Amino acid sequence: MTALKNDTLIRALLRQPTDYTPVWLMRQAGRYLPEYNRTRARAGNFLALCKSPALATEVTLQPLDRYGLDAAILFSDILTIPDAMGLGLYFAEGEGPRFERPTQDAASIGKLHVPDPYGELRYVIDAVAEIRRALAGRVPLIGFAGSPYTLACYMVEGGASDDFRIIKTMLYKEPALLHRILDVNAQSVALYLNAQIEAGAQAVMVFDTWGGNLSHDAYREFSLAYLARVLASVKRDHIGKRVPVIVFTKGGGLWLESIAGCGCDCVGLDWTTNLADARRRVGDQVSLQGNLDPMVLFSTPQIIREETGKVLASFGDGPGHVFNLGHGISQFSPPEHVAVLIDAVHELSRAYHHDGD
Amino acid sequence: MTALKNDTLIRALLRQPTDYTPVWLMRQAGRYLPEYNRTRARAGNFLALCKSPALATEVTLQPLDRYGLDAAILFSDILTIPDAMGLGLYFAEGEGPRFERPTQDAASIGKLHVPDPYGELRYVIDAVAEIRRALAGRVPLIGFAGSPYTLACYMVEGGASDDFRIIKTMLYKEPALLHRILDVNAQSVALYLNAQIEAGAQAVMVFDTWGGNLSHDAYREFSLAYLARVLASVKRDHIGKRVPVIVFTKGGGLWLESIAGCGCDCVGLDWTTNLADARRRVGDQVSLQGNLDPMVLFSTPQIIREETGKVLASFGDGPGHVFNLGHGISQFSPPEHVAVLIDAVHELSRAYHHDGD
Repeated sequence: MTALKNDTLIRALLRQPTDYTPVWLMRQAGRYLPEYNRTRARAGNFLALCKSPALATEVTLQPLDRYGLDAAILFSDILTIPDAMGLGLYFAEGEGPRFERPTQDAASIGKLHVPDPYGELRYVIDAVAEIRRALAGRVPLIGFAGSPYTLACYMVEGGASDDFRIIKTMLYKEPALLHRILDVNAQSVALYLNAQIEAGAQAVMVFDTWGGNLSHDAYREFSLAYLARVLASVKRDHIGKRVPVIVFTKGGGLWLESIAGCGCDCVGLDWTTNLADARRRVGDQVSLQGNLDPMVLFSTPQIIREETGKVLASFGDGPGHVFNLGHGISQFSPPEHVAVLIDAVHELSRAYHHDGD
Repeated sequence: MTALKNDTLIRALLRQPTDYTPVWLMRQAGRYLPEYNRTRARAGNFLALCKSPALATEVTLQPLDRYGLDAAILFSDILTIPDAMGLGLYFAEGEGPRFERPTQDAASIGKLHVPDPYGELRYVIDAVAEIRRALAGRVPLIGFAGSPYTLACYMVEGGASDDFRIIKTMLYKEPALLHRILDVNAQSVALYLNAQIEAGAQAVMVFDTWGGNLSHDAYREFSLAYLARVLASVKRDHIGKRVPVIVFTKGGGLWLESIAGCGCDCVGLDWTTNLADARRRVGDQVSLQGNLDPMVLFSTPQIIREETGKVLASFGDGPGHVFNLGHGISQFSPPEHVAVLIDAVHELSRAYHHDGD
């Protein structure tokens, strides 16, 4: 495969010196871009877009054509795995994802299987390969999956939830059932990420969107332990290149030390954690990714530059920072403000990378 | 007024020795109780219930008649203040609270006034006095208010929000407008809490429900600074008795040291913070309230006892702990499980209070 022309992201994830701080945005290929909405309309709906390697490739590259981003991220959804398990993923208009057949009892949980990445999930692996070819080495491609616990939230609740009452009832009342789901999910996520790496993903990220809603103790037992199991099974080298792994537990700032010890190379942080504090807490153990409040993009170019500068200053000198938002970009963000952000990161971050100057 | 027969809550809030750990539950007078639903049906709706001192007194006392709770909390709503400002509070069926006239521009913000607790909010103060009389010293009465920032969220967004896009756009783009709202809110909250104290509230709590959604820096500037202003104005002694103040920022565990320094006597914690860690971080500065995951109430009596025991053990020996849930009790909680929880706190906590044994 083509060598990388811009390996800044990979170097920063591995805490190696770079000339500037690399930047990409969670959900960078998304509804805030008019060209994305046009492709999605052609596909018919979100799921059809995910399931077409050609269209997934098209939208993955769209933000790279607009902005000087330092990474591409596979266009897909974290719920492809439970969908491949046969739970029947669908998107109700104006609502989040839902499953037709949630897994709430021993019978349905007993029947859960680990999907074959080259079977039911072939369309994702094909998309990874096609995106990688289309990128032709411009920037690295990030693959991803949902965390075992976050997938379980959707599988058990049947969709998003305000209080996670169903899964937490299972967690406290019938923990063995939940452990069984998490075991299947951890195996599935590891196989899936490894297939993405084989197909060309040069870094991978695990999104633990709902782990932050667990209690301190339950997080360790039901989310972090399974993240660690995934990480222990994920290939960390492919064709002589190190494949860095990012773990992001939204709302997990309190547990940063534990997350940094789970085997990942980089910890994603939402905007509630100060990066200087975070760096003091993790030392040299991992790199850090984040953490501008996505709502800053609704201010003005000048304020976006100032707030970007504050995030860069809070991390401070030296390698190990990947700039990102603290959560996915809002669909209402003005695309021209994203350009201001990306340019500001590249320009203002040079002051923090002195090596060899 | 009658002397307190059970002052365990007040003593624990002030870090004085007690025989056991006192317990009350956020939203303890609420929809999980059949008798509450009957009174609410008589009132017609939630707002009518809040606005009737007689019915508010009735529902405030209902959980005390069922359980051995160590405190009563005024039955009311945090949005009484913006309602009294004329924003038009209403509750759409099956949805959260909404305002007919949100304050999103300089003109409407310029017109905001500080409500007179003895004018538009008289019904709350009357309820406090009536509840206090009805309690006849059984347990202390906790008064409360929303934090200036949390009230502003509802006032600007017009209701609850997933992303707080409107208020955060104001925060980043026109911070002076938001500061104007927060200034009015801080004055309003302080006057309101002082009137509750004059009418008989023996402790007060400020609920910062949405502050945890701010960035690390924005929390300090837009929520904590105004909490500190409220606390600087709230009467701390009334008729020779100390009136403890509890501050609870949901999702604020990362910022515990800062919150503990805002002038409060006690910091409320949600279930994501380990109490042993929290205690190490705040030392002798404040007492701590919390922090069982409310979803534990959906398990079994045995598991409720075990999880209660874990929370008590995590705080450990000595005074300064008020047991509570980490958030309001769910409307779906089985009432008989609440009895198990209250009894478990009282029984199991005696081992951690050795003084004089």
